[in-house]
Order: sequence, then structure tokens, then C-alpha cells
Amino acid sequence: MSEVESFFKSAFSVDNVIFGFDGGDLKVLLIQRGAAPYRGKWALPGDLVYPNEDLDTAAERVLEQLTGLRGVYLEQVKAFGAVDRHPLGRVITIAYYSLIKIDDYAVTPASFAQSARWHDFAHIGELAFDHNEILETCLKQLKHKVRMAPVGFELLPPKFTLTELQQLYESILETELDKRNFRKKILSMNLLIDLNEVQEGVAHRPAKLYQFDRVKYEQFVGEGFTFDV
Amino acid sequence: MSEVESFFKSAFSVDNVIFGFDGGDLKVLLIQRGAAPYRGKWALPGDLVYPNEDLDTAAERVLEQLTGLRGVYLEQVKAFGAVDRHPLGRVITIAYYSLIKIDDYAVTPASFAQSARWHDFAHIGELAFDHNEILETCLKQLKHKVRMAPVGFELLPPKFTLTELQQLYESILETELDKRNFRKKILSMNLLIDLNEVQEGVAHRPAKLYQFDRVKYEQFVGEGFTFDV
Repeated sequence: MSEVESFFKSAFSVDNVIFGFDGGDLKVLLIQRGAAPYRGKWALPGDLVYPNEDLDTAAERVLEQLTGLRGVYLEQVKAFGAVDRHPLGRVITIAYYSLIKIDDYAVTPASFAQSARWHDFAHIGELAFDHNEILETCLKQLKHKVRMAPVGFELLPPKFTLTELQQLYESILETELDKRNFRKKILSMNLLIDLNEVQEGVAHRPAKLYQFDRVKYEQFVGEGFTFDV
Repeated sequence: MSEVESFFKSAFSVDNVIFGFDGGDLKVLLIQRGAAPYRGKWALPGDLVYPNEDLDTAAERVLEQLTGLRGVYLEQVKAFGAVDRHPLGRVITIAYYSLIKIDDYAVTPASFAQSARWHDFAHIGELAFDHNEILETCLKQLKHKVRMAPVGFELLPPKFTLTELQQLYESILETELDKRNFRKKILSMNLLIDLNEVQEGVAHRPAKLYQFDRVKYEQFVGEGFTFDV
């Protein structure tokens, strides 16, 4: 065996941190593993990458197998490659995160999972592999992203109130924000379109509804956006 | 051979985008490959990762072999894993970038390189593998970083002028900045310590010298920094 051949003994996988928002809390989709290693443990949805499959394609496949959704926002975050992170051999995993609206789909456990369920961040125990570390890293990345690009298009319904938008920011940043400051900042960006409509069927005084200005939103995703909260 | 074993046939590598600043221009350190594939082509310094080596350790090894420097700023940027990116088989590479002062060391080509040299961004031709794409991605990441954290500690001499700091920002962002605005912004952050000294041995009117406030700098690296230019 040549020296180079001795390097070709690794496998690699993708793991997806799928963030969802139900209007109140930020959640993460976890699966209960149906196969060894760590059978029965909760874990991030992920899979080994096929020899002829690109990384992004593999991440999209895992997401689609689990949620039935295509064309969802997915972003590569980091490669995790500690020598002993996988009991079967050297496996480097590439972590992705995605953002989806929780009511967009029904969770169907894929072949690699016994069951799949949304979890609150407050109630996540010890996950399989190094998945707690991966989850932490992706959450940090999401918090960072909130400061650098508008967020919400993927997580909120098409029409939403300023309170719902603020709740989204608060649940991502895990902190309470001042209502007046938040509104002043977000409105000054001209990112929102005032629909001149109000909520229907609510017990309290109905709040105004907004939608994102798609063109402005896309521009901000490119650059020039900073949201200091 | 079991189904799982068929996945353990990949190799992985690290590639380092080493940015340097010589006081005027931002440069990148490239090596001329000494071995197949792409022998003789310019490429990013990188190497296959040993079976018992962590990713960060491998990136540090490549950097040290090439520059003799340890403890240098290194940040993982992205994994590149297109199916056909390497002629010898499936090789996923993890890209890192680092920032160093050009006069900190002498370039010593490592075993995997014929020669190593600093290159201007304006004069980079076609590199080996997908290294042009990796370089682009890392440069974009550096431009992003400039907005989110102070930069310069690793790239400037201990004492520097505001003009030198502005040149650093301009060379990273590839754009000219308004002198008055730049100074106003950077000074309002209380990030710099006025040394009450001026340049020596210059033909023009000597400029004031500054150094970074290390404590403030480290705080900003953590969070709360935004530099809109």
C-alpha cells in the first residue's frame, strides 16, 4: 500500500441543525437514533455522505428525508473532526444549519431515525457523538447572523406583527429587548411593508400586520445590514 | 465488505489562506507544488491530515512548516468537498485563514513545496485544484470579519499611524475610505491608545503613533463591534 493510500480511510458525514420557530420559542429538530452507534440516543439529523455526492447535496438530502422540504435555507457552519469523535473510525462531519417554519411540514422520521421531534433549548440532554458541541456552535452562528443580516423571512408567517418579530429576535438572542428601541430600529430600516391591516380573531386589541420588503431584504442579506441590539 | 466500510475510502486535507500585510498591500502566501498532482503549479499551502491528527492541529502544522510561526491567528472558514475536486480520489479539504505580519518571518518552503512566495491579489493566476474558489471564499470572510471585529493586531507593527491603519482597511476591503470619517469612527471606539509619540525618520511631517488597547480589543473580538465603512 502506498503512503498516499493510507490516507484514504476516512469517512465524512453531514449533520443538520434545523432551527424552527413556532411563534413563541426557537426550537431544534432532533432525531432518536435507530441504529448503532448510540442507538436510542437523541442526535442531530445527519448521515454519511455518499462517495459520489457533494456536501451541500447530502445536507439537502438529509433535510428533505426528514421534512419533505426542498429549497430551504441551508448554510454550512463548520467541520468537526476530532480524532475520536466517532466509534466506527475517522469520520469528519460538516455541520449545516437551516431555518424553517414549524408548521410548514410534518416530521417523518427518515430511515436513520426511530423518531423525530422538536426540542426546546431548555430541555436538551446529552446528545450522541459531539452533537451538543455542534449545536452550540450553530446557535452561536445564528446569533451572529441576526446582527449581520435580516432574519425572519424563513421563520415567520407571511404577515406578522412587530411583537412576533421581536419575539423571534428575543428567542434567538435569548434575551429581552426594549420594545420601543426594537421598533424604532427595525422600522428605520425600511425593511418592512405596513400592510394597513390588523390581526383578526384576537382577544386583545388587534396589532398591525407587516410583511418583509423582499427586494430590500435580499439587498440586506448581501451587505450593509447591522442590527445592534 | 460491509456497507459502512464502503464509506471509509475518503481522505481529507487542510488548506491555509495566509494573509499578510506589508504596510501597503494585502498579500497571500502561495506555494509552488513540488509533487503530483499539479506539480509546478501555484497553490495554497496545505496537506493531507494524518489519521491521528485533529483538524486545527493539521492547519497549525502546515503554517508552522511554512513560516516557523506558532500561536498565529487561525480560523476555520469552510469545507470544500466537490466530488471531482481531487484527481487522486475523494478528498474533502477544510480551509483555514490566518493573518500575519509579513516581516515576522522568512518563508521556508516545506517538504510539499518547491518554493513559497507572497503574491499580490492583482497577480494571481489559475491555481491548483479549487484553490481560486477557496481563496475567494476566505477573502470574503476576511472582509466580513473587518465589520464584526477589530482587525490589525496581527497585521500591523506594535506602533502605527492612523494612515497605516486606514491602508490596512482599504487593502482588505479593496476600496478607498474617506479619511475624516475613518478617523472619527475608529477614534470614537476608544480602541486606540495615543502614545504621544510621532514617527521618526520620515521625509514628510511625522504622524502620531498609536497602539491598540489590548483589553478593549479582546472585548470587541467577543462582541459588540460593528464597523460600517
